[in-house]
Amino acid sequence: MSDPFVKEFLAHLSGKPYTKNDRRALSRVLSLMENREPSADEVLRSLAGRTGTAYRIGFTGPPGAGKSCLVNGVARLLADEGRSVGIIAVDPTSPFTGGAILGDRLRMHDVALHPNVFVRSMATRGSVGGLARAAAHAADLMDAFGMNYVLLETVGVGQSEIDIVEHADTTLVVLVPESGDEVQAMKAGLMEVADIVVVNKADRQQADALKKELESALAMRPHDASGWIPPVMLTVATQQEGVEELLQQIQRHRRMLETSALLTTRRKARIRHELLKMIEERFLDRWSARDVEAELDRYVGDVLEGKESAYVAAEKLFKRLTRPSRS
Amino acid sequence: MSDPFVKEFLAHLSGKPYTKNDRRALSRVLSLMENREPSADEVLRSLAGRTGTAYRIGFTGPPGAGKSCLVNGVARLLADEGRSVGIIAVDPTSPFTGGAILGDRLRMHDVALHPNVFVRSMATRGSVGGLARAAAHAADLMDAFGMNYVLLETVGVGQSEIDIVEHADTTLVVLVPESGDEVQAMKAGLMEVADIVVVNKADRQQADALKKELESALAMRPHDASGWIPPVMLTVATQQEGVEELLQQIQRHRRMLETSALLTTRRKARIRHELLKMIEERFLDRWSARDVEAELDRYVGDVLEGKESAYVAAEKLFKRLTRPSRS
Repeated sequence: MSDPFVKEFLAHLSGKPYTKNDRRALSRVLSLMENREPSADEVLRSLAGRTGTAYRIGFTGPPGAGKSCLVNGVARLLADEGRSVGIIAVDPTSPFTGGAILGDRLRMHDVALHPNVFVRSMATRGSVGGLARAAAHAADLMDAFGMNYVLLETVGVGQSEIDIVEHADTTLVVLVPESGDEVQAMKAGLMEVADIVVVNKADRQQADALKKELESALAMRPHDASGWIPPVMLTVATQQEGVEELLQQIQRHRRMLETSALLTTRRKARIRHELLKMIEERFLDRWSARDVEAELDRYVGDVLEGKESAYVAAEKLFKRLTRPSRS
Repeated sequence: MSDPFVKEFLAHLSGKPYTKNDRRALSRVLSLMENREPSADEVLRSLAGRTGTAYRIGFTGPPGAGKSCLVNGVARLLADEGRSVGIIAVDPTSPFTGGAILGDRLRMHDVALHPNVFVRSMATRGSVGGLARAAAHAADLMDAFGMNYVLLETVGVGQSEIDIVEHADTTLVVLVPESGDEVQAMKAGLMEVADIVVVNKADRQQADALKKELESALAMRPHDASGWIPPVMLTVATQQEGVEELLQQIQRHRRMLETSALLTTRRKARIRHELLKMIEERFLDRWSARDVEAELDRYVGDVLEGKESAYVAAEKLFKRLTRPSRS
């Protein structure tokens, strides 16, 4: 009944050792999940106790900051140490405009050829909310598959993209010296989620000035219980400069989380967020399946024309949405 | 069975002429609605065909811009022309800090003593989302009560407050000359919702400079189908200066909406928004009533400890939320 790749993946979950062929199974299961095929649900239902091993690192920042290149560099260091690394590159841009960017990203991820590295690009299919859900599932699947690290990367800095990466164990915000103006605008939102700030392309002018500016902004940020102050790191990802020092900071942050209770706190927050997203997604599915949108349109007209009160219309729509499915 | 004031209100809806006593009924029904008493639902269910007469004007802008004073001035002009005016002053600040502001607002609304004017202050009880719903219901109730105008006013410029006023027929954004810096930050969000921009306290320096700056910013805004370019008006609300000219612009905007199909388009958008808010509110009620929060906490622990997959947990929570109520 089940897809052969799903069977293979499930066998792997049950302890079958990791082989080259399993990568095809992982790839196939990710596609099934992205396409929302029911056979993927089998796998997702089987993940109890299989996740929580992989350490998750999120990379966000404005387009053009060199995030892909940096992810590439960090992944290479980890892979060379013998760690297995999954990369999820999330692109919420329209499929119509995203082609070139995506091609560019694939080029950047030459580390994908490394035997310890598995790269997956995900673009929007339907809603950005759906993408967040798919990215969370993909991270869980890679985690269950046995990856030691999962690196999550977004193209831009929209709120939903921040949502995706800020639920990583360690979140990096990547900027470039030229982004000084942008920094002003997004300081509030971006700086709040940063565990580590990276100024990439630091061989350009003004890198040191931006570093100083960021450090004073971060010093004013109210510290959380951990007392962690996000370090600002300078890198030139294309030359692999500063990437080792960056990885050391990531590991330092990891140790801080692990030796305090904070890793558990963060992961609880992430699971909570994932569950809420999944519940929301189920409502949206039902909204489409039951054609509530058309019904809503009808009621808007009825209320406007005075045939129905808004209160009664809302009551009826709520019932339509919550009545049991025909079994 | 029904509250006597609810009865009186319902009688009024059926055509009983408007008297002083009815104001007490309106006041009482608004309180019942704000407290979410079931007897208010009777009234809300009876509003079909009773709304859509009142013209709704929203006032938003940073705290201290003199919105209350301006609302007062506009209401006075309308009331003196023999129009009935309802004012809804929405304050999402905490009840603990909001006391002084609220007191100040009441002082500003001396027009409340005018026989044609009815003022209602609403502060947050529970969620800001709940406040948006309550404000929408209050506007509908005042509309059904026979008010010719409903003026909606917020204290600040948070997203949820913008949501409240932007669904008015005409939305005013009120600024002061000193708010030049703020304008930069909120230009995007605020200017998008403005049908008319007011620079209040225009007797201060830089009022003309701000007016010019705003006009050029608004000229760059992509025009909607109507071709309406939001005018920038100078007022000194405390002296009632410029308020008549402002009212003329409001009436000009109203005529533009009425002679095009835009008033219908806007009202449809508003009703749609209200219905969605009400549906959401019903889910939140159910979330509390069924104690889904505690269940969610339990599942977060289970997923973290590997006892349950996130997928199955989400499935179970969704079922808990959508299963039929015991009747």
